[in-house]
Amino acid sequence: MTITLPGPTLGVVGGGQLGRMMGEAVAPLGVDVVVLDPTPDCPASPVVSDQIVGGFDDADAIHELASRVDALTFEIELADPDLMAEAAAEHDVPVHPDPDTLRTIQDKLVQKEALVDAGIPVPEFVAVATAEGLERVVEEYGGVMLKAREGGYDGRGNVPVDDPADATDALDEIGGNAMAEEFLDFEREIAVMGLKGADGETRTYPVTETIHREEILRESVAPARTDDAVVAEAESVAHDVLDVLDGRGVYGIELFETRDGEVLVNEIAPRPHNSGHWTIEGARTSQFENHVRAVLGWPLGSTDLVAPAVTANILGDVHESRALVSQPESPRDSGDVDETQPATLRNVDSVLAAADTDLHWYGKDDVRPLRKMGHLTATDRNVDADRDALLSRARDLRDGLTFRDA
Amino acid sequence: MTITLPGPTLGVVGGGQLGRMMGEAVAPLGVDVVVLDPTPDCPASPVVSDQIVGGFDDADAIHELASRVDALTFEIELADPDLMAEAAAEHDVPVHPDPDTLRTIQDKLVQKEALVDAGIPVPEFVAVATAEGLERVVEEYGGVMLKAREGGYDGRGNVPVDDPADATDALDEIGGNAMAEEFLDFEREIAVMGLKGADGETRTYPVTETIHREEILRESVAPARTDDAVVAEAESVAHDVLDVLDGRGVYGIELFETRDGEVLVNEIAPRPHNSGHWTIEGARTSQFENHVRAVLGWPLGSTDLVAPAVTANILGDVHESRALVSQPESPRDSGDVDETQPATLRNVDSVLAAADTDLHWYGKDDVRPLRKMGHLTATDRNVDADRDALLSRARDLRDGLTFRDA
Repeated sequence: MTITLPGPTLGVVGGGQLGRMMGEAVAPLGVDVVVLDPTPDCPASPVVSDQIVGGFDDADAIHELASRVDALTFEIELADPDLMAEAAAEHDVPVHPDPDTLRTIQDKLVQKEALVDAGIPVPEFVAVATAEGLERVVEEYGGVMLKAREGGYDGRGNVPVDDPADATDALDEIGGNAMAEEFLDFEREIAVMGLKGADGETRTYPVTETIHREEILRESVAPARTDDAVVAEAESVAHDVLDVLDGRGVYGIELFETRDGEVLVNEIAPRPHNSGHWTIEGARTSQFENHVRAVLGWPLGSTDLVAPAVTANILGDVHESRALVSQPESPRDSGDVDETQPATLRNVDSVLAAADTDLHWYGKDDVRPLRKMGHLTATDRNVDADRDALLSRARDLRDGLTFRDA
Repeated sequence: MTITLPGPTLGVVGGGQLGRMMGEAVAPLGVDVVVLDPTPDCPASPVVSDQIVGGFDDADAIHELASRVDALTFEIELADPDLMAEAAAEHDVPVHPDPDTLRTIQDKLVQKEALVDAGIPVPEFVAVATAEGLERVVEEYGGVMLKAREGGYDGRGNVPVDDPADATDALDEIGGNAMAEEFLDFEREIAVMGLKGADGETRTYPVTETIHREEILRESVAPARTDDAVVAEAESVAHDVLDVLDGRGVYGIELFETRDGEVLVNEIAPRPHNSGHWTIEGARTSQFENHVRAVLGWPLGSTDLVAPAVTANILGDVHESRALVSQPESPRDSGDVDETQPATLRNVDSVLAAADTDLHWYGKDDVRPLRKMGHLTATDRNVDADRDALLSRARDLRDGLTFRDA
């Protein structure tokens, strides 16, 4: 293939922060980006060529998008695989990752079964349909993470259950098809951003440590503070996962490191992922640029580390989020829409003035508790940098920010 | 001052590649950018919030811009200082750099006189009004660079004259007010990107070596391959220049290093400059991000080197540009509008596949000879990297690109 510029136009279903950072990443390469998103002036809108305002299930809008672009991708699992496949076929444009892959991933039970079929290690899991069934599983596993099979994100749709008596309430909270996973007493959570290019080429980024609270990612530390054997196992598992998935692009592969040093797959995202935001500053080529390179069938960029990095998420804190720590069973309560208010992030000076720190604002005008509003990444160009210190620095800077009135 | 997000809206007069790279640089910081440019779908347009289509002398358009933004700047010397000052005052928004500084810089004779007044070393120069006057100066200096006092760029408006007999033709080619500068037998050309922030704070980027052909910048090498004494002198001169200039922002300070190791100021650009494009990859904070930080009165980012870098410009080569080397007295001929044709840059694969190389496309749909269409920057994270090798690598990659049909 011969690549020429002006570059292709890329259509992205979804225009949130991931679409925004894709657009930021590939503008220098001459790739025009058009996003489809139901929210007018979505986060990606100001930095890309154009936005089509339409729902993810709006066939006309998706056909319009496909008709205007040279390749299609998506940045949100709510994208409709059938509509994308149909529009891509009708307008003869490639769509990556493969909509079949998205379909498999959208249902967490189907996703897990596909991984088991491929011999990839995952936590014990089982579908649950009734409170009685859930009670039995909780007793057998000694505690489970109950998960909505579809539509969960950022902790929504995940309910930890360690008492069989809570089975009915937990299923009510999920409110739909559910699965239960053994509640792992893991050593740490880690993640690998995997990259699948043309001709089945696969690459991985350095293994990342992910720190969650209330089921929401708070910080990512790269490289992960774990031992070499675990790193090697995580990379091996990630390559196995990439071999199972169809279609080019970046995949966020979330993993558990057990107390025995085993690596189990938690979940897969068929797109750039929060645990890979550090790659913007910390890797030679960011996950966003490499996602687009892969989707377009272009040569992949290096995934090498250039600087150890810690990303700290900036979440909506208009209500006291610490209080939620004592109620981990219902993180969804914190996200009620009626707690939305205009966003004003304060004390940004300290982050702008800090050395070796980069700020990323997602362009959302409204904040609500725990909503992802931006992130900052602290780096250290010494490859042997003290990652504990880097994590402290990133947290201190992030914790100095607030959406609350002074 | 307390900085909050969502960020301010910045108005930029001019929407060429400099405006585009400003927009790319500050989108992550939550700064919305609106550009004013006469060309619909100007290079900056796809990556910024909005473009107002209007001329640089269109008072209504400039007032509209000022009415929609929190701060004003410009990325082209053709911006009208009086109109910007008036619109900024009426809408009570700051404009940086100071329009007075732009006015001084727009007239190369006034610029040079201001530098001399401040005791800053410059080549010998003199205003010339007639062929007879020019003949005398050519004889006295043994050759001069005849310069249009206003409106020149990229070698247009610069005509070398070493034979008094060419005086009339040279003045005709300039076609307006002119000045003549002694034709320096310099060792090399260098440049310093200077930065002026709030409260008079000044910073400089590492001294850059600039390689011109036909008066057009071809490559920049950072840090410059020169000795420490010259570097120290260049930094000292740059700080003196910054002290003379009014208003916050980035200034491109072009210098001559004479055979005696003296440093003389050639020209100043009150904006990010081609010789500073390497800072995107090679410095901790790019000239584009720092220009916007400065204009907004935000804390300045570090200007430290992170990787030696060579930028190679990608110029329109639809006609054999080498032939022009034998006619350096009329580079303008190569830019005639009727040589414009749709741009298709070929062989981009090799650049995308190259290690430690970043491509920047300016989004121009049409190419003409010597038009700046993009650039690539080769970096080496070893601070002692062999810059000769880096220059060869950048040139080889750039020379593999072409706008010509196969």
